Amino acid sequence: MNAALGVFDSGLGGLTVLKEILRELPGESVIYFGDTARVPYGTKSRETITRFSMENLKFLQTFGIKAAVIACHTASSLALDAVRGAFGFPIVGVVAPGAAKAAAATKNGRIGVIGTRSTVESHAYENAILERDPAAKVVSAACPLFVPLAEEGMTEGDIVRQIVAQYLVPVIDYNVDTLVLGCTHYPVLLERILEVLPPGITVVNPAVEAARDIAEVLKAESLEAPGHHRHDTRYFVSDEPSKFVELGPLFLGRPITRVERVVEEYGWNLSNAA
Amino acid sequence: MNAALGVFDSGLGGLTVLKEILRELPGESVIYFGDTARVPYGTKSRETITRFSMENLKFLQTFGIKAAVIACHTASSLALDAVRGAFGFPIVGVVAPGAAKAAAATKNGRIGVIGTRSTVESHAYENAILERDPAAKVVSAACPLFVPLAEEGMTEGDIVRQIVAQYLVPVIDYNVDTLVLGCTHYPVLLERILEVLPPGITVVNPAVEAARDIAEVLKAESLEAPGHHRHDTRYFVSDEPSKFVELGPLFLGRPITRVERVVEEYGWNLSNAA
Repeated sequence: MNAALGVFDSGLGGLTVLKEILRELPGESVIYFGDTARVPYGTKSRETITRFSMENLKFLQTFGIKAAVIACHTASSLALDAVRGAFGFPIVGVVAPGAAKAAAATKNGRIGVIGTRSTVESHAYENAILERDPAAKVVSAACPLFVPLAEEGMTEGDIVRQIVAQYLVPVIDYNVDTLVLGCTHYPVLLERILEVLPPGITVVNPAVEAARDIAEVLKAESLEAPGHHRHDTRYFVSDEPSKFVELGPLFLGRPITRVERVVEEYGWNLSNAA
Repeated sequence: MNAALGVFDSGLGGLTVLKEILRELPGESVIYFGDTARVPYGTKSRETITRFSMENLKFLQTFGIKAAVIACHTASSLALDAVRGAFGFPIVGVVAPGAAKAAAATKNGRIGVIGTRSTVESHAYENAILERDPAAKVVSAACPLFVPLAEEGMTEGDIVRQIVAQYLVPVIDYNVDTLVLGCTHYPVLLERILEVLPPGITVVNPAVEAARDIAEVLKAESLEAPGHHRHDTRYFVSDEPSKFVELGPLFLGRPITRVERVVEEYGWNLSNAA
């Protein structure tokens, strides 16, 4: 069907997921919403993230979307179960696909997960991995400075190297052979992460897996767009768009031109000023 | 009069301002609101911060406050002028008192200001200083990692030292003799900041000046509480309160026990679940 696919994230980071979706599904129209007025989600509580997620999905719903991807790992970890039943379209998160890939990839059964504080404290990745491989050993580490580093475009230099090492060394010391990038911002720091990792560790980017997952869901439910001509990718944000336009390409890997703004009034509404 | 004083901030940081208010005004009751669901403000736009500030002041207004302090430098920089006329009580920010102190303190006329990106880009400090001393030279530097560091309780260690030095060296090289801590979180990093500063630089903490300012306003408008017995300090936050309770004492310098939660519904409302 011709309806668009909806994608939401706390802000910019979900563009790393959108990048994979656009690659995997070249024929689909996509509506992307970044909640830049309330970013970040990774330091906030389950109840608050669930409320934000409901509001974001209701906004996407106004476009008559046929399916949604929660690109934010924190929202996928804390809110997916609560919001799934509230909408008449399929909703895919990034945690289950990432966990499935990690469980399939590990050889020694030791998996590292890095993410925001809220994602790690939710144990969502750990639970999803153990569901697939009950014998797996999962070590999780919160990397709370990675999001501000990525949002500042600080991806190089000694300070960044030291911060990356500080977070990753305890995970590496656990002798993991697989590492899940459990936050949308982390692919932006991938080069620094690879510098610290010893050889032979498989890095799982759940964005890639989530894109495959939503492709399978569209196929299984006969929701695929006819033909392969993309109609449109539209971007909406809840704060002033200039930072999104400026930094977005770092995450998406291509320029972003037109971004529309929504304002919150009794839930999200389209801004007249946009 | 017995009505309370209202104080709001984007989250925890304003507790460094509250600390000075409690010291300066031992006889006043205070209602503190931290917008922890939407923190931080320092990366967001004027329009969004103005909307948040209006909502926060409306919430404080429901307690019949006699005056308000905007403890957040970003909100003071971006929103104070817009919200001031909308309420029937005096509203004091932190920028004007900090700027006045800096203009009075400098001897060589060279003043450094460090703050969030939004505060620095607003030029609010610069304008307020130049109003008092048109010949002053002001150099401003955004320190976007300071807030996440402080919020993580990361105030020691080599990485913190290097980040502090990276932001401050260009300011020091400008030969300033006065440095304004233009964000509520920065006093938490004061020891690291002092390690980097050469001797003889006056550090201005606008929290101290804002507390004096609101004391003067209360006196001038005959709004002081009778007697000197504090009735109550109440804390409200917009996200789940546990992090506020845990990290708050680092900013306030004393324990925080009871914190109430508000939820946003058509503006902020008291949560039934609190």
